[in-house]
Amino acid sequence: MPLETKSLWTSHGGQQGVYSHASTACACPMTFAVFVPPHQPGAKLPVLWYLSGLTCTHANVMEKGEYREAAARLGLIIVCPDTSPRGEGVADQPENWKLGCGAGFYVDATEQPWAKNYRMYSYVTAELPALLAAHFPMADMGRQGIFGHSMGGHGALVAALKNPGRYRSCSAFAPIVHPMTAEWSRGAFAAYLGADETLWRAWDAVALIEDGARPPPLLVDQGTADSFLEDGLRPWLLEEACLAGGVPLTLRMEEGYDHSYYFISSFMADQLAWHASFLSEDIVNF
Amino acid sequence: MPLETKSLWTSHGGQQGVYSHASTACACPMTFAVFVPPHQPGAKLPVLWYLSGLTCTHANVMEKGEYREAAARLGLIIVCPDTSPRGEGVADQPENWKLGCGAGFYVDATEQPWAKNYRMYSYVTAELPALLAAHFPMADMGRQGIFGHSMGGHGALVAALKNPGRYRSCSAFAPIVHPMTAEWSRGAFAAYLGADETLWRAWDAVALIEDGARPPPLLVDQGTADSFLEDGLRPWLLEEACLAGGVPLTLRMEEGYDHSYYFISSFMADQLAWHASFLSEDIVNF
Repeated sequence: MPLETKSLWTSHGGQQGVYSHASTACACPMTFAVFVPPHQPGAKLPVLWYLSGLTCTHANVMEKGEYREAAARLGLIIVCPDTSPRGEGVADQPENWKLGCGAGFYVDATEQPWAKNYRMYSYVTAELPALLAAHFPMADMGRQGIFGHSMGGHGALVAALKNPGRYRSCSAFAPIVHPMTAEWSRGAFAAYLGADETLWRAWDAVALIEDGARPPPLLVDQGTADSFLEDGLRPWLLEEACLAGGVPLTLRMEEGYDHSYYFISSFMADQLAWHASFLSEDIVNF
Repeated sequence: MPLETKSLWTSHGGQQGVYSHASTACACPMTFAVFVPPHQPGAKLPVLWYLSGLTCTHANVMEKGEYREAAARLGLIIVCPDTSPRGEGVADQPENWKLGCGAGFYVDATEQPWAKNYRMYSYVTAELPALLAAHFPMADMGRQGIFGHSMGGHGALVAALKNPGRYRSCSAFAPIVHPMTAEWSRGAFAAYLGADETLWRAWDAVALIEDGARPPPLLVDQGTADSFLEDGLRPWLLEEACLAGGVPLTLRMEEGYDHSYYFISSFMADQLAWHASFLSEDIVNF
């Protein structure tokens, strides 16, 4: 699994890199970003996955997310994948920002023409972790957390719910908690997963919790001035499912914040500190 | 002097705004960004000016500079002007990134066709401060500092040297300290200021210090892996001029850092704390 280094910057005492590789899961070249904080030679560091939202690549959060100061201080590796397959031969609807490139929704598509490339769930939860472990010897794959924004918040919740024990912590900024009933995601779910909506439940955080899946500790920040709050995001649906299922959830409504990186960056350091409280120490079994 | 609000985001507890107005100095519409930190009603806050480098607008540092966390914590207003006039009727050489739009060099041009619009010195040191004072009642214009990056580091140094007593502190990331002898700035100086190089000394930090100007406290961060270090930046020339002139200078060579916002953002909070040490308290005269 060769890896090409596209860029490498010293930042906040660590190294921010951008890498590309030939992805098996997505059947195309894929690009992702990794920040490695300053560390002692031989040290093993926890890994925190950040999944981005609709229209983004790896670059948006890398440039605007303001995660490096806290990640350097807390000793966290931050990995930022792309949001979909891209490039020549990859199915797309360029005029539709809710389907195709930039809108992978972190599912494994079963329908044509999407099934060939749109396997972002396998990419993010299997192929990329293996690649990271192979190329970043300081990454402690026994200590992983996951978080994300909007569509990436959905991706983080689903990845955590479908892989009990894999992630020690899961958080989100303004996640799409119930994509199978939200207008802006139903089109993509139908295209990627087909018309049988019962199959969509395997890719929906609220439905997974209703169906018995249990997440690691959950934290959600949601801006009260987010223009997608009422129609697309609806965090109260997650709150209700967690309450009904006896699942602890910390949901923080953040007054005056919208859906942008000006919101994300405001609570980034706080979410990283929260993850670090679960990731920083090896769990010792007596 | 009417002001149009283009964008306004809640971020880090404060407000990040983008504004536009009809500039008299530049004879065209101009856009700038202001971050106002959280504060008590009626409070007066110090103002720190950030001048950006070649090719930038107000947006680069606003998106990638990571200044809001520290500015909110320290109670600093951060103002980020554009780097040149722009738009219809404004002279430009679109194929040349070192002259025209994005390359105002914070001088008042005397030569045609530039003299009509390229008056960034007057814009940044006179027109915009008056506009800020008129529209931001919490801005304490008696407590100003200035800093910048690359071409904007040059602009900050020159503004501070030409206005003794105006700015309490001046810092820079990788500034062009001696533009009249640097290859990448000589073309712009010749175009804006004419062939008589003796007139260029009024717009050159090293020459101004040689000619007796004295700055407020000075801090410079310079990355050792900056590809412009040897030819364009040459911080040792500032060091020599300061030494010869008895001017205190703190020059920090930052190991492994380049010329990018990954460098700037790494030392942003530190530079803000340094400015705040001069700006946070009113000077009391006994």
